[in-house]
Amino acid sequence: MQEHRIRLTLGKGEDRRIKAGHPWIFSNEIRELQGDRLRGATAEIYDAGGGFIGLGHYNPQSLIAARLLSRQREEIDSVEFFRQRIAGANELRQGRYPGLATYRVVFGEGDFLPGLIVDKYEEYLSVQFLTAGMDARREMVIAALTELFAPRGIVARNDVAVRSLEGLPEAVEILAGDIPDQLAVTEHGLRFLVDLTGGQKTGHFLDQKENHLLLQGIVAGKEVLDCFCYSGSWGVHAAAYGAAAVTCVDISERAAALARENARLNGVANAVTVEACDAFERLRSFRHEGRRFDVVVLDPPAFVKSKKALKEAEKGYLTINRRGMELLNPGGYLITCSCSYHMGREPFRELLARAAQQAGRQLRLVAARSQAPDHPVLLAVPETDYLKCFVLQAV
Amino acid sequence: MQEHRIRLTLGKGEDRRIKAGHPWIFSNEIRELQGDRLRGATAEIYDAGGGFIGLGHYNPQSLIAARLLSRQREEIDSVEFFRQRIAGANELRQGRYPGLATYRVVFGEGDFLPGLIVDKYEEYLSVQFLTAGMDARREMVIAALTELFAPRGIVARNDVAVRSLEGLPEAVEILAGDIPDQLAVTEHGLRFLVDLTGGQKTGHFLDQKENHLLLQGIVAGKEVLDCFCYSGSWGVHAAAYGAAAVTCVDISERAAALARENARLNGVANAVTVEACDAFERLRSFRHEGRRFDVVVLDPPAFVKSKKALKEAEKGYLTINRRGMELLNPGGYLITCSCSYHMGREPFRELLARAAQQAGRQLRLVAARSQAPDHPVLLAVPETDYLKCFVLQAV
Repeated sequence: MQEHRIRLTLGKGEDRRIKAGHPWIFSNEIRELQGDRLRGATAEIYDAGGGFIGLGHYNPQSLIAARLLSRQREEIDSVEFFRQRIAGANELRQGRYPGLATYRVVFGEGDFLPGLIVDKYEEYLSVQFLTAGMDARREMVIAALTELFAPRGIVARNDVAVRSLEGLPEAVEILAGDIPDQLAVTEHGLRFLVDLTGGQKTGHFLDQKENHLLLQGIVAGKEVLDCFCYSGSWGVHAAAYGAAAVTCVDISERAAALARENARLNGVANAVTVEACDAFERLRSFRHEGRRFDVVVLDPPAFVKSKKALKEAEKGYLTINRRGMELLNPGGYLITCSCSYHMGREPFRELLARAAQQAGRQLRLVAARSQAPDHPVLLAVPETDYLKCFVLQAV
Repeated sequence: MQEHRIRLTLGKGEDRRIKAGHPWIFSNEIRELQGDRLRGATAEIYDAGGGFIGLGHYNPQSLIAARLLSRQREEIDSVEFFRQRIAGANELRQGRYPGLATYRVVFGEGDFLPGLIVDKYEEYLSVQFLTAGMDARREMVIAALTELFAPRGIVARNDVAVRSLEGLPEAVEILAGDIPDQLAVTEHGLRFLVDLTGGQKTGHFLDQKENHLLLQGIVAGKEVLDCFCYSGSWGVHAAAYGAAAVTCVDISERAAALARENARLNGVANAVTVEACDAFERLRSFRHEGRRFDVVVLDPPAFVKSKKALKEAEKGYLTINRRGMELLNPGGYLITCSCSYHMGREPFRELLARAAQQAGRQLRLVAARSQAPDHPVLLAVPETDYLKCFVLQAV
């Protein structure tokens, strides 16, 4: 519980981004700080002229020194505050997906709750506290979630590197009730096993659900390759939409086993082959074997975790996309994704054009999509728009 | 008919863009030209080292001195060449839209036929010859189209300003058969009257057809405003999807009359009001009247016809978007479009963020779309990706 309040006054002109609707204050934008520099403290934020801007969470250890929670004078340190915010976010999802049981309930900044992720998997909740401010308020958040959803269990998937930037430890913790070893969830009428305590991200890539539908109408009777398949959601969708044969590739044995289970669970095990091997290498060896595909899916994990690592990551994206393009039959489709915010939308598109040139292929851009609407994008917060999913067709 | 051939040799390094898949050669990239500088001549194009690049159409009067038609040594001046290219383009549409009668058959550069537009309206064709090269080959094109589609009539909508850049006159001509005064076409089961000889563009905005579907699920029972409505396709779709009341605004009396006709034709005249007045002004007066809407559509004609006019056009986009946002009820949607290539996708998005700030509104980005797939986008030719359609929701 936070009782301590500090007062931040921004430098002249440093309020521009935040007044344009962005919730972040960088440490070098603060001119004056009154109060103790406690991690997670509630901050009252003022512009250089003393005008009230809003209320946020403070962290002296982070480059992002404060994140705005409210632009009004209101109580932001109460169960009721979190209950209302989370209820509002949940309403948005229920409006878009009436009756859906598995979805992202809270998407941090996109839902005006910086640092908080809440995913609902049937009757269970998986949460992430990504900032010191939110971490310090976990009891309020748990109380609000319990009130709203009465979940059978809540797991904290705080095993994420970004917490170290906030000076927080990485761990997986059961916060309430019981969490099953595996849980089957539904997406577009298909069933997927989710590993809530050990899976990638919070267990299932909820952000791709609308993009999986892009496979409809292009895979029937076709040969499909799903690289970085994880638990096989692209591949199983492809098989369910009538693909003749699907090859899934993931370097993790555990992921490959899960993908095989998911194929069986949906009655498409005959059409789906899962290989536990490095997708970079496999893309190359397929080419040497003369294998070609009608549809290639590239949905790699985030290569770029920071701005610094971008150069190296670009090489990775260029390589897999060039190789993926080389494997396409004439008229074939490449579905290629990047979930790194630091790999911008236009730069990614330009990179794909470079890859096409290197592969000697002329490609049509059939669709350019983002993440599902339970990961809302705020126009004023570019960082909330992180997922790129392009559908390209070989001419 | 073109018999004359010229030989163009590019300067060192000037082949980069064209070898990356782009079809344009600018006049300052040509090092040497052999042959007569005839407008519309067939050009053999070589790189600085004498390597063959491809075959194109030449125009000494245009900044874009040549446009590539083929990267192989083949006959590009024959009915058969055009028949094959157009048949290939038509196959792509039939694959995406089986059985559709009204669609764009050929989209210039996007179909490897620079300077040629062919729209099919039921049994009629509307064509545009936008370059001197294509204009000089109109007889071949007409012969190929007649063979493929046996149309009841072909009209040339050559009344477009871009022809002046090529030194070509502007005119509307009936090239074959008869053209009716008005024709009813079908889009998503709705009927729209098209003015084939005098309507905007070739008569109907075929590029928006998939975007009209974005209205589904957000307009039922709502108040909708359709600005720059032209023949009312957004407004009539909204009414058909259950809008309580739709107000359409267009400065043209003729367009307003057509929109009214289209509302009647679809049995939604009771729900649709059409005002013939300036949308810029009307957006302002609605605000002063205290009128608010649940859904505002802004689909203006191209404000930016050239790079030079961009500054002025940006002001126009900023104004209408700010005003449109100001009219939104809480939770309301703005569907906002730009069909100017010179207004880039990212700059348009940034402009919308500025407009939101000026309007004092926080907005979610719900969807970011482009044109329908019968206007194919080539990854290597950014100019083919011209339409922006964003769906924003007021928080």
